[in-house]
Amino acid sequence: MTQFFQAAAMTGERIFLYDTTLRDGAQTQDVDFSVADKIAIARDLDRLGIDYVEGGWPGANPTDDAFFAQAPELKRSTFTAFGMTRRPGRSAANDPQLAALIQSTARAVCIVGKTWDFHVDVALAIPREENLELIADSVAALKAAKGEALFDAEHFFDGYKRNPAYAASCIRAAFEAGARWIVLCDTNGGTLPHEVESIVRQVVEEHGIPGDRLGIHCHNDTENAVANSLAAVRAGARMVQGTINGLGERCGNANLVSLIPSLMLKMGCDVGIRPDDLPLLTEISRKFDERLNRAPNRHAAYVGASAFAHKGGLHVSAVEKDPSSYEHVAPEAVGNRRQIVMSDQAGRSNVIARLREMGMAVDPKDERLNRLLDLVKQRDTEGYAYDTAEASFELLVRRELGEVPDYFTLKRFHVTDERRYNAKGELVVESEAVVRVRIGGTEYHEVAAGNGPVNALDTAMRKALEPRYPALGGVKLSDYRVRILAAKDGTGAKPRVLIRSQNGDGAEWSTLGVSTNIIEASMEALVDSYAFTLFKGGVQPRG
Amino acid sequence: MTQFFQAAAMTGERIFLYDTTLRDGAQTQDVDFSVADKIAIARDLDRLGIDYVEGGWPGANPTDDAFFAQAPELKRSTFTAFGMTRRPGRSAANDPQLAALIQSTARAVCIVGKTWDFHVDVALAIPREENLELIADSVAALKAAKGEALFDAEHFFDGYKRNPAYAASCIRAAFEAGARWIVLCDTNGGTLPHEVESIVRQVVEEHGIPGDRLGIHCHNDTENAVANSLAAVRAGARMVQGTINGLGERCGNANLVSLIPSLMLKMGCDVGIRPDDLPLLTEISRKFDERLNRAPNRHAAYVGASAFAHKGGLHVSAVEKDPSSYEHVAPEAVGNRRQIVMSDQAGRSNVIARLREMGMAVDPKDERLNRLLDLVKQRDTEGYAYDTAEASFELLVRRELGEVPDYFTLKRFHVTDERRYNAKGELVVESEAVVRVRIGGTEYHEVAAGNGPVNALDTAMRKALEPRYPALGGVKLSDYRVRILAAKDGTGAKPRVLIRSQNGDGAEWSTLGVSTNIIEASMEALVDSYAFTLFKGGVQPRG
Repeated sequence: MTQFFQAAAMTGERIFLYDTTLRDGAQTQDVDFSVADKIAIARDLDRLGIDYVEGGWPGANPTDDAFFAQAPELKRSTFTAFGMTRRPGRSAANDPQLAALIQSTARAVCIVGKTWDFHVDVALAIPREENLELIADSVAALKAAKGEALFDAEHFFDGYKRNPAYAASCIRAAFEAGARWIVLCDTNGGTLPHEVESIVRQVVEEHGIPGDRLGIHCHNDTENAVANSLAAVRAGARMVQGTINGLGERCGNANLVSLIPSLMLKMGCDVGIRPDDLPLLTEISRKFDERLNRAPNRHAAYVGASAFAHKGGLHVSAVEKDPSSYEHVAPEAVGNRRQIVMSDQAGRSNVIARLREMGMAVDPKDERLNRLLDLVKQRDTEGYAYDTAEASFELLVRRELGEVPDYFTLKRFHVTDERRYNAKGELVVESEAVVRVRIGGTEYHEVAAGNGPVNALDTAMRKALEPRYPALGGVKLSDYRVRILAAKDGTGAKPRVLIRSQNGDGAEWSTLGVSTNIIEASMEALVDSYAFTLFKGGVQPRG
Repeated sequence: MTQFFQAAAMTGERIFLYDTTLRDGAQTQDVDFSVADKIAIARDLDRLGIDYVEGGWPGANPTDDAFFAQAPELKRSTFTAFGMTRRPGRSAANDPQLAALIQSTARAVCIVGKTWDFHVDVALAIPREENLELIADSVAALKAAKGEALFDAEHFFDGYKRNPAYAASCIRAAFEAGARWIVLCDTNGGTLPHEVESIVRQVVEEHGIPGDRLGIHCHNDTENAVANSLAAVRAGARMVQGTINGLGERCGNANLVSLIPSLMLKMGCDVGIRPDDLPLLTEISRKFDERLNRAPNRHAAYVGASAFAHKGGLHVSAVEKDPSSYEHVAPEAVGNRRQIVMSDQAGRSNVIARLREMGMAVDPKDERLNRLLDLVKQRDTEGYAYDTAEASFELLVRRELGEVPDYFTLKRFHVTDERRYNAKGELVVESEAVVRVRIGGTEYHEVAAGNGPVNALDTAMRKALEPRYPALGGVKLSDYRVRILAAKDGTGAKPRVLIRSQNGDGAEWSTLGVSTNIIEASMEALVDSYAFTLFKGGVQPRG
């Protein structure tokens, strides 16, 4: 149904994908891939079926040298090295940088060269004619040695806007020297989609480079990198360069994770990925962020945790009637899933949908449903926003239904934070927590220190709980956030604490605490995290 | 120079901007605006010069009711209420929801109505003809009562793809009933730019709605919301709806912060914002994220901290020769700044720029500048992000220069949080803080209780300080936020506390604390807030 209004002209067109995460993506501020990272990422791209995986620049830095020396064997992707045109005043045969590319384990080589007259004049400072020789010689040498050479036309769009004849002569030099792909780069990222479309059309129609030899490389400086790539494809380009999750310097490169499903599911293109493998996309995107130690973007197109989230009563009942009326593609097609969100607009149908998601059979006429709905609403007015704390929501529901055993009861706690001078005269801050916890018939009294009050409480609680419930041993807190609900009363405002926990298998869940006291709110979220772990693990309460 | 390849046809075209952050943006998971948030955000949008500010849905929830009751006076923006077409089976005059819109303080009203036949059949379950009456009646009633009515055509693109005649008849009903703007909504967010352009052209050319009555409302489900909005403008639409930073449910709405500079600086459109006000964009974008307690996106187009970041070496000298050869727009045009990564020179000019902002005359050859630079860098690696804590930055600098008197010294503190049963058998949580503070030659030892550890510390500190420094009496904490800097160690991660303070005149400033101990980090931010108050008030230290 979603496919109705298609540009039928694109259906079945083969569009080649070229990933530059490991090279251009590695330019990102604060990103520093290890060799092991590079190997794991290249394997994921190969598993997905990306045509070209650019590994880096052999000879440019020790990591890339080591990576090329241990080059992973790729089954489906062409492993590609990156470099630049030969230096002025040297022959291609005598250029050490080109030699490193030729000697590398890569099966293809992509080199960047200048196409904007201004950069030839100012950065290279050589006659413009000589730059054409640099391009032609380098491409020819690489093609002869490796079989496949690609040419990245740096600053092509900016260059073409000022001096179309010269920019075109540069890419013709690469084309005539036998480059498999001429990749038009919007290096500064400022070109808009209608400009990309118009210039790519001119390159095909006026400058005689066939579309099946043209690629596109975009940056996201105007938030149009994805659209610019699609515009180039519509104008004839048959190869797209990009990165996982749009990684890249400044505002990032074109995001392959967004481009792939649009090309496959909406434009009907063949990008070399099997439809059965497309669901890998969500997993690969999230694993990639985990590897970079950053939270996956909940709002990412197609693969974000919120990409198929639904909020609001009426709306949710409509989704259940026919998902395609509220979802532009099926979440499962890209490996994602639908999510029903709780909120102050929560209606009955939201609660029912969330209960179904939790795997509970619900009879809409069940009296208890109204009680639950009232409970959720009341908690909502107290500041409990359950939309991002699915574990606390599930506990609330299952406790109300009497399903959660009484694993333990926190009777009292006591935390001390002290800033004082120690015996050596150094200023130290220490936290100490004392807890009294009843498990079965026994009360346990434990004390622990920590580098903050929440850490001290967590440690003391685990001292009491873990000997009786070893399942808690593998659980770690992965995030802790505090937000003030209403800041009318100065420091007396009401903190809301959200804790994210993780077990050894990588499963994650969020719990919530709300109180005027931040320590109490934190403790509430901690206690929910322990209880959720035990409940989901099917652990029996200790007598 | 960047303007060379322009679609000259757009130059000077008036494009109207409509912000829906406070309504559609508020649908975002985990976003929960208070009335104070809404007022502050509306004021920022007005200051920037956005044509329409949609405040919310009066009558739909208590927050929106309270906000409309205290509606801020906007100087440049039209304050707009949102609602929906009347209910089936009721006249417009008898529809309580329309009545709430009419009685609201808004100067214009925007209502959403169905235009996809499938949703009329299934969600409304009324004859399609009747839906046209709902639209026409509601628009006419609102126009008569308020003077200006707008119509959001829900699911227009999906509806048009399946049944163009019916979708067109719906918007014609609104047009003929006098809607000022017919806003075509890509509600599910799945439409691609070329489809948007083609459909908007058909609406203008085949269905007779003039472009200066057409608006566009996009969602980012394929990462094309910005491009889709631009495509609609190129096809004739003259109004764009969007949100600050692309806030919105699922993958977000069209990002006005990216759209505005592209429309103004690249397409030459007049969006009603004075070029002199465009630099407000970066500040408004970042303040907005701080308000939502989330880290501003470093990679955001135009306004991100990395948007104009350059890596060291040759590139940088080329940038210095001619910035326009490596930057698609001047960073200052949008209130951003160039950042040279890994270059002392850059850090230096950054610090100089900030000192100038503080009103300090700086001699770039001053030796002390290098010391300051080292200090700022070291603090940065410790997690002190001074971007949003201008008061702590100023104190850091002025302390280093020996300008800040020694108002008081916090010698020790001690906080206890206890959860226990009181004499009546009720569970209570109490915090108590003890502080030792030296002022002049005297040490003061004070104790206070509070409804949380930070509140207790604040109260105890004021007991010691206020009798000696009455100026602190008028200062209140207006916000308190905690963010975890690296969550590798579970609860042992390092919290960053940001405190916002306010004096009786409404002046506000932010201070910062970083420590593995959340209480210590909070105390550091509190102490900075007191010191900043005294320093800026020109208070003399007590002997």
